[in-house]
Amino acid sequence: MPDLLIQNISQIATPKPGVTRGSELRSLNVIENASIFISDGVIQAIGPLSEVLKQVEGHPVILDAEGKAAVPGFVDSHSHLVFGGNRADEFAMRSAGMSYEEIAEQGGGIVSTVEATQLATKEELKNIARIRLQKALRQGITTMEIKSGYGLNLDNERKMLEVINELKEEQPIELKATFLGAHAVPKNSTKEEYVEEVLNMIPEIAELADYCDVFCEDGYFTKDESRSILEKGMEHGLKPKIHTNQFNDIGGVEMALDLDAVSVDHLEVLSDEDVDRIAGSDTVATILPGVSYFLNIPYSPARKLIDRGALVALATDFNPGSSMTISMQLLMSMACTKMGMSVEEALSCATQNGAKALERKKLGCIAPGFQADILLLDTDNYKDLAYFFGENHVHTVIKKGEKVWESRG
Amino acid sequence: MPDLLIQNISQIATPKPGVTRGSELRSLNVIENASIFISDGVIQAIGPLSEVLKQVEGHPVILDAEGKAAVPGFVDSHSHLVFGGNRADEFAMRSAGMSYEEIAEQGGGIVSTVEATQLATKEELKNIARIRLQKALRQGITTMEIKSGYGLNLDNERKMLEVINELKEEQPIELKATFLGAHAVPKNSTKEEYVEEVLNMIPEIAELADYCDVFCEDGYFTKDESRSILEKGMEHGLKPKIHTNQFNDIGGVEMALDLDAVSVDHLEVLSDEDVDRIAGSDTVATILPGVSYFLNIPYSPARKLIDRGALVALATDFNPGSSMTISMQLLMSMACTKMGMSVEEALSCATQNGAKALERKKLGCIAPGFQADILLLDTDNYKDLAYFFGENHVHTVIKKGEKVWESRG
Ligand SMILES: [Zn+2]
Ligand SMILES: [Zn+2]
Repeated sequence: MPDLLIQNISQIATPKPGVTRGSELRSLNVIENASIFISDGVIQAIGPLSEVLKQVEGHPVILDAEGKAAVPGFVDSHSHLVFGGNRADEFAMRSAGMSYEEIAEQGGGIVSTVEATQLATKEELKNIARIRLQKALRQGITTMEIKSGYGLNLDNERKMLEVINELKEEQPIELKATFLGAHAVPKNSTKEEYVEEVLNMIPEIAELADYCDVFCEDGYFTKDESRSILEKGMEHGLKPKIHTNQFNDIGGVEMALDLDAVSVDHLEVLSDEDVDRIAGSDTVATILPGVSYFLNIPYSPARKLIDRGALVALATDFNPGSSMTISMQLLMSMACTKMGMSVEEALSCATQNGAKALERKKLGCIAPGFQADILLLDTDNYKDLAYFFGENHVHTVIKKGEKVWESRG
Repeated sequence: MPDLLIQNISQIATPKPGVTRGSELRSLNVIENASIFISDGVIQAIGPLSEVLKQVEGHPVILDAEGKAAVPGFVDSHSHLVFGGNRADEFAMRSAGMSYEEIAEQGGGIVSTVEATQLATKEELKNIARIRLQKALRQGITTMEIKSGYGLNLDNERKMLEVINELKEEQPIELKATFLGAHAVPKNSTKEEYVEEVLNMIPEIAELADYCDVFCEDGYFTKDESRSILEKGMEHGLKPKIHTNQFNDIGGVEMALDLDAVSVDHLEVLSDEDVDRIAGSDTVATILPGVSYFLNIPYSPARKLIDRGALVALATDFNPGSSMTISMQLLMSMACTKMGMSVEEALSCATQNGAKALERKKLGCIAPGFQADILLLDTDNYKDLAYFFGENHVHTVIKKGEKVWESRG
C-alpha cells in the first residue's frame, strides 16, 4: 500500500489518546489547518504541512481535503447487523395502532427475524449484510461488532458467525464477532433446555467468536443463567459482554462486573449503586440511544455515568426490532439533545471509547501511532456531526490509510 | 424534454389524489410491479408495463428502476433555508451545559444569524443556500418553501427574497418565497417601531414573495400586531401563513383562521377548541417535529388533529436555532415514533398535504395528470422511509420528468 499524505484539512478533531473518562473527555485535541501523513496504514505525523513533510519519505499519494474537517472513523461496538427479513411492515402496523399481541399473532416480533434468518442461506445472509455494511461505511463506521443471536440453534448460530467472519475478508469495515446464542428462547424449547443447548454450543463455535454475550432480562435469561453462559464462554476464551438493565434491573450489572466483563450494554434502568460500580471498574458502559428513541423508553443516564467516572461508549444496537438505525451521527445528536452529553464527549464515545469496548488499542484517535481510520467531513466544523441532524456529513472514508468510500455529491 | 418511461418499479406508493384528511389518509394507493410513463413533465400513465405501453408514443428515454420502490417527491412547506453563519458552536456550548443567557452574552441566538445574514452579500448567501438545497434534493425534497426573516430591515429582507427568487432559476427544487419580516424585533428598535417598519416593507417586497408570515408568540408579535401585518400582506396579494402556538397560546390560531390563512404552523401548544377550529377549516395545520426533537418541547398533537379531520402537513422548519435538519425521512420516523401517526399518514403529510400548504395542485401524488416529481428508493418497501431511520433511502430524484440526482453508492 502506498503512503498517503492528506493536505488542507481545516480542522482535525480527535479524542486525546488514552483519555476515555472523566472531565478531560469534555475537550478534544483540535488542530487547525493540518495535514496527516500515513504509512503502512498507521498515522505517522499530524500538524502543519511544513512539519509533517519532514516525516515524509518517498512519494506518497496526495489527497487534498479542500478544507474539510477530519475526525476518527466511528467504532460501533454493539450491533446485530446480520439478520434475515424486513420488519418494516410490522413497524407500520405498530404505527397504525396495532398492539404487540396482535402483531405477534400475525407472526411479527423477534420470532419473524429468527425464522427469516434460519431460512436464509449463508450466501443470502451475506448479500443482505454486505448492503448494510456499505450503508454503515458511508455513514463513517470503520469498525463494527456484530452479534449472532437470530439462529437459536447450533447450525444457525454457526452460520451467522461464519457470515460475520467471511465478511471480514470481503469489505473494508473491520469486524468483531460476538456469540449471542442466549438472545431469546426458541419456540418449542423450554428455557432450561435451551440454556443447556447454548452451553453445549459454546465449545463448537468458540473459534468463530471474539466475545460471548447474553440477554439478561426478565422473561429472557436470569442472572444465574446468564452467569453460567458467560462463564462457559470464558472457559473457551470468549470474554463476556452483556445486554442488561434495558427494561428491568435483575442484578446483571453487578454479576457482569464480577466477571470483569468487557462491556455492560443498555443500562436504561440503572441504580446509582450500579453507576458507581461501573465507574469503579474497567468495564465499558455501552449506551444505545437509538433503542430509547425507537421504543420510547428512558435514555440511559449517560451524564451521570460520565460525571461519576465511568468509561462510556456510544453504539447503534442496529437491529430490526428495537433500533433500526446505523447512523452514529444521529446517535451523537441524541447523545447531546436527549442525554446531556457534550459534542466532544459524544465524539469520543463514538470513536476511541467504542474501540475500548472492542479492546482495540491504537484505534479511534487521529494521532501518531494510531491506525489511520479517518473521516473527512462535508463541513469544516466537527460540531455539525451532532448539530445538523438527519444528515450524513461523511464525505470520504479512509480505512487503514486507504480511501474506501467517497461521496459523489 | 424527452418523454420518460420508468420500468421495473417494485412498488409505487402514493397518496390517493385529493385525499388529504380523515381516515382515508390511513391507506395509500400501492401498485406492485409497475411502470410510469411521463411526457412534458407530467405523469401520463401508471400500472403494469403492458398497459402503460399503450399510452407511449415515440421513443421515450427508458429508466430501469431495478426493483426500487417509488414515492412522490417530498414537499417541504416550511423552511428558513437561506441564512448566514453556522451555529454549531452555539449548539456545542449548549450541550456542554452553558445557559441560554450565557450563550446570548457570547453573541449567540437568532441575533448571530441576523448579523451573519445582514453581513453576507447576495452571492455569498446564494452559495451557502445552493449547498443546502443540494442536500435537500438528495434527501428527496423536490418542492420547498423558504422564508425571509433574518434580514429585519427592508434592504436585507429584500436581499433574502431575491436570493430565493434567483435560486428558483438555478437548481431543480421548485421554490416558494415567504416574507417573514416579523420574525423577531431587531436590536435598536422598539417593537412599535419595527411593526411599523414591517408594514412599510410589504408594498416594497410584495412582488418578490408568495406568502406573508409572522411569529405570533409571547415576546415576539402579539395577536393584534400579527393580524395587522398579515392583513397588510393580503392587501398586496400575499396570502397569510403564521408561526403560532409554539410555546404559548395567545390566540393566533383563531385569528389566522379568521383571515383564511393558507396554513397555521407549529401548534405544539394547542387547545382542543383550536384543534376543532382547524379541522373545520381549509387551513393546513403544518407540524414541525424537528423542533420538538431539537428543543425538547412537546410534539404537536398530530394524532388528534388528523382524527378530528384537520388537514395536516409535515415540514422541516429547517433553521439554525430550533430545527437544524432537512431530512423529511427522519421527520416521518418522528411522526410515527413520537406522534402516533401511521407510516401512510406520514408519507401523505410529507407530499400531497405539503403541496396543499403551498397551494400546488397536481403535486405530491404519483397519478396521471400530476407533475412527475418522483423518488426511487434504495428499498422495495416504502415503509423503510420511516422505519429504517437516520438513513437516506433516496436513490434517484426525478423532477418534472427529468432525473436530477442519483446516488452513486
Ligand atoms: Zn443489542
Ligand atoms: Zn419556522
